[in-house]
Amino acid sequence: MRARQTDILIRNEAFYTAFTTRDLTAMASLWASEMHVSCIHPGGTPLFGRDAVIASWARILSSPVRSSLQCLEPKIHLLSEDLAIVVCFEQSGGEMLSATNIFALENGRWVLVHHQAGPVAGETGSAADMPAPRLLQ
Amino acid sequence: MRARQTDILIRNEAFYTAFTTRDLTAMASLWASEMHVSCIHPGGTPLFGRDAVIASWARILSSPVRSSLQCLEPKIHLLSEDLAIVVCFEQSGGEMLSATNIFALENGRWVLVHHQAGPVAGETGSAADMPAPRLLQ
Repeated sequence: MRARQTDILIRNEAFYTAFTTRDLTAMASLWASEMHVSCIHPGGTPLFGRDAVIASWARILSSPVRSSLQCLEPKIHLLSEDLAIVVCFEQSGGEMLSATNIFALENGRWVLVHHQAGPVAGETGSAADMPAPRLLQ
Repeated sequence: MRARQTDILIRNEAFYTAFTTRDLTAMASLWASEMHVSCIHPGGTPLFGRDAVIASWARILSSPVRSSLQCLEPKIHLLSEDLAIVVCFEQSGGEMLSATNIFALENGRWVLVHHQAGPVAGETGSAADMPAPRLLQ
């Protein structure tokens, strides 16, 4: 159990390292190649399928806006022998986000099958002003 | 397979009905009672554990700000016999959000173990101005 959690945390950390180092090859290898994948970037609409998801990362990692992305306080929820959710904060410059990463064991490797991230209100000026009735502060 | 997908979609729809009708009892019954649960509301920080998650819904559903929440274009990804991701849009008044709902089969019932929702940029004035380097439009 402990070894599995360590493996997942290492893969989760590799996701943020791939972002910060703008390593598209590493990013692509972190996503499932056989299972279906989906991704919701901050402010984005859902993307479905490996082609769309990897293409989105190619655009993001080649953007002239350079930023690091640090994972803070990751919490693992093992759903089964081969599925897990990691819920964490993401810090990008002065912006704080909340994120969901779903990992699956595919051919002996933990890979991402879904990712969603969104800004924490109050951490950026504009997000704090969002008319969100579900907002909890 | 088809019956399972129908069951999950019915439960997913019940989640949005519970929100719109402000039915906390129905909302509470939709969340897992034995498995660990977590929830990230729009603009919020991650919440962990049934007590914290249900308490957050109690606050939201008793808010003086009344709003409906409609699920649009739900897509199911069956991860296993008893785990599934639903990715969808949520429409709340003039605001559009993207959402992740993770369902698990617990004692023969599909229940939520995780939910994250966040606004789609461009759908609200302030969200469109968010300085989000990962923003894809």
